[in-house]
Amino acid sequence: MISRVLSAELPKHIGERVTIAGWLHRRRELKSVTFLVIRDRAGLAQVVLPASETGPVGETGPVGETGPAGEETVLQVEGLVVANPQAPGGAELTEPRLTLLSGPAEPPPFDLYRPALTATLPTILDHAPTTLRHPLLRSGFEIAAASAAGFRAGLDAAGFAEIFTPKIVESATEGGANVFRIDYFGRPAYLAQSPQFYKQAMVGVFERVYEVGPVFRAEPHDTGRHLAQYTSLDAELGFITDHFDVMPVCRDAVAGMVDSVRERASSAMHLLGATLPTVPAEIPHIQFAAAMEMLSRATGEDVTGEDDLAPAHERWLCQWAEREHGSELLFVTGYPLSSKPFYTHPDPARPQYSNGFDLLFRGTEIVTGGQRLHRHEDYLAALGARGLDPAPFAGYLQVFRHGMPPHGGFAIGLERWTAQLTGAANVRQVTLFPRDLHRVSP
Amino acid sequence: MISRVLSAELPKHIGERVTIAGWLHRRRELKSVTFLVIRDRAGLAQVVLPASETGPVGETGPVGETGPAGEETVLQVEGLVVANPQAPGGAELTEPRLTLLSGPAEPPPFDLYRPALTATLPTILDHAPTTLRHPLLRSGFEIAAASAAGFRAGLDAAGFAEIFTPKIVESATEGGANVFRIDYFGRPAYLAQSPQFYKQAMVGVFERVYEVGPVFRAEPHDTGRHLAQYTSLDAELGFITDHFDVMPVCRDAVAGMVDSVRERASSAMHLLGATLPTVPAEIPHIQFAAAMEMLSRATGEDVTGEDDLAPAHERWLCQWAEREHGSELLFVTGYPLSSKPFYTHPDPARPQYSNGFDLLFRGTEIVTGGQRLHRHEDYLAALGARGLDPAPFAGYLQVFRHGMPPHGGFAIGLERWTAQLTGAANVRQVTLFPRDLHRVSP
Repeated sequence: MISRVLSAELPKHIGERVTIAGWLHRRRELKSVTFLVIRDRAGLAQVVLPASETGPVGETGPVGETGPAGEETVLQVEGLVVANPQAPGGAELTEPRLTLLSGPAEPPPFDLYRPALTATLPTILDHAPTTLRHPLLRSGFEIAAASAAGFRAGLDAAGFAEIFTPKIVESATEGGANVFRIDYFGRPAYLAQSPQFYKQAMVGVFERVYEVGPVFRAEPHDTGRHLAQYTSLDAELGFITDHFDVMPVCRDAVAGMVDSVRERASSAMHLLGATLPTVPAEIPHIQFAAAMEMLSRATGEDVTGEDDLAPAHERWLCQWAEREHGSELLFVTGYPLSSKPFYTHPDPARPQYSNGFDLLFRGTEIVTGGQRLHRHEDYLAALGARGLDPAPFAGYLQVFRHGMPPHGGFAIGLERWTAQLTGAANVRQVTLFPRDLHRVSP
Repeated sequence: MISRVLSAELPKHIGERVTIAGWLHRRRELKSVTFLVIRDRAGLAQVVLPASETGPVGETGPVGETGPAGEETVLQVEGLVVANPQAPGGAELTEPRLTLLSGPAEPPPFDLYRPALTATLPTILDHAPTTLRHPLLRSGFEIAAASAAGFRAGLDAAGFAEIFTPKIVESATEGGANVFRIDYFGRPAYLAQSPQFYKQAMVGVFERVYEVGPVFRAEPHDTGRHLAQYTSLDAELGFITDHFDVMPVCRDAVAGMVDSVRERASSAMHLLGATLPTVPAEIPHIQFAAAMEMLSRATGEDVTGEDDLAPAHERWLCQWAEREHGSELLFVTGYPLSSKPFYTHPDPARPQYSNGFDLLFRGTEIVTGGQRLHRHEDYLAALGARGLDPAPFAGYLQVFRHGMPPHGGFAIGLERWTAQLTGAANVRQVTLFPRDLHRVSP
């Protein structure tokens, strides 16, 4: 391994000769001195190069003023650590010896050292392998990774088992639309829109399961919220009474995500100017029908006949929850059954409504969940009521013949959650190499 | 939530009335008494039902001898906990009140309560949602999940960042064969064979990255080792000197997996009669060329002209490593460059050999890794030497124009690892809903 200290550790080595290594983030040339700023995974380090030592670049030696080694060249720098309150971290490297670790880099078509990338989003995405090096862009992924780790840790602690399920399926469990078709050894097959069937089936094995994995939607919508592939944080548990037993598990999962971001990605949050929500011990909840009545009264527009929340309604309800309950999170329960998938359990007391819920956060839905049907005959009836042929669902339905407990679960889209948490206007800003209607590379 | 204690907790409640819930694992009828064995995620519990109380089954009440509630029906049982050294865990439930939580189950076409499932593998896989409930089958997945958790924990501790990369790609990075083609909004695209390109690119962002996710191979081989989808544990790190800096990271990842299985899945290992390897602080290694010479001397067959190890050679080398080094794990380094992908770094001292390695475990290869090329011009030369057009690789190559450090990594197939660890003859036995040439459901 290249023996080195990380940039953030320099202040601990004042007076010593050490080696650092990283990318030439920026070169600043003054009259008598050149500063090289080296970027590594821990931050930035300043290297002081006397003007007299600049010259042509070699595999080892000073990096020349006019040499081919542009920004983003990977360098190893051995030098003396000296205290300097002006330098990042309060220390800098003097009397440097430089070694090129990459070939001399071609500078990228944008300045990664500027506080913000000025390129358009399509340009940023076209050059994602390089633009992701920008601290602002990279931060979103640190936050996403910390969120996923927190989701897993929270569910591990609650006795959930992790599962890895097929992403190639024979038929579309969520319904026929928006699926990608594959040539599967000469036969048609589809990319999984969700692990719904598999996580339900695995409740029959482990009682409580979760999965963190990709799901695929052939979304024809070209918006800032839709992706053709996203990372779904899925959980499902058995032996519930109804969806009100699922909501606290969802609350704890979200709280675990928030805690993990605080622990692992606080500097990324700071860099993005983003703040974490306080997750109440019990997230407030409101019934869909009550919410629609309240919305109608407040806005003067009668929306009590609608079967789903419009984006403006979601924003209004979040403002209400913040005002009334001091919470940035709000559960909306009991959506009309007609707006939910066929496996949704009805509310026994009001069968036209579901035992489902959404979790709204800062004006938008980030989680969908609920109780599922668990009796074989209820599935047949639900498919029949929607005019769906049960034949393509035979593989899905067999498990309900052989004893399934009342169960439910939820799914969180990692990219939407991260966008909402960081205030990103477009989910693509926090998606590693996004896939959409127009984009399948890099 | 249904308020209950788990089967394993019964001995702590002797003398109390408690509620348990789970699947009717088995009903054993004796002359004067019927035993119900209830299975939950923690194990088995015995319920004693006086013969006089058997009768027709209802939503609440005793489960009838001739009633429709067969094995796998989900029940809630409230009763008095009584010590009984003959019962599982030394306690059983008497004076039971039973409530059906599922519909009365149709008994599955095989007996889940028998020590082993007697069905053939295709039958077991056809009924996977139900057969996975068998403790022997379920154990494989507990071990796989524990392994994945250990992989992540080990790399987290070593400063690696988790990434989630696209599974739909514009062209096949590993070469043209064995890719699944998708209809991507009317254009062709492919399922990713590995996150190779993305993990390398992300070394430029985070220096050290890992991913746990599905990869797809249109494998035309119908063997016990090949799958169309498997879970790949991928890692990549920068600022290495050569592959000998990657091997200790790989060793630590495997050691973390073993530790995690020991902590989280020891009863599953015990049930399968499987034992964990001791991972040496330094796993022994042998150069490919030296291994071939040794094999030739030992077997009398000249294999020094071969460019890869045959399965029999892998088994022989593992026996040798166990005999000579007391290790069930062996690194083989320096395979001929011609047998490795174009991004493989050559050995500077012997350019016809690679800076790559395989890790063999109990007779088979479970990890492939090595140093990658990191200079743009080296990629162009490597593609040219293999007669490959660089155009389809343009997206892949751009990152090497802009400064990449020397780097390398490795990939572990989770299912093959689990099969090897548990002694499963067929990787499908430890794959949740396997996908292969013939199977795309359930």
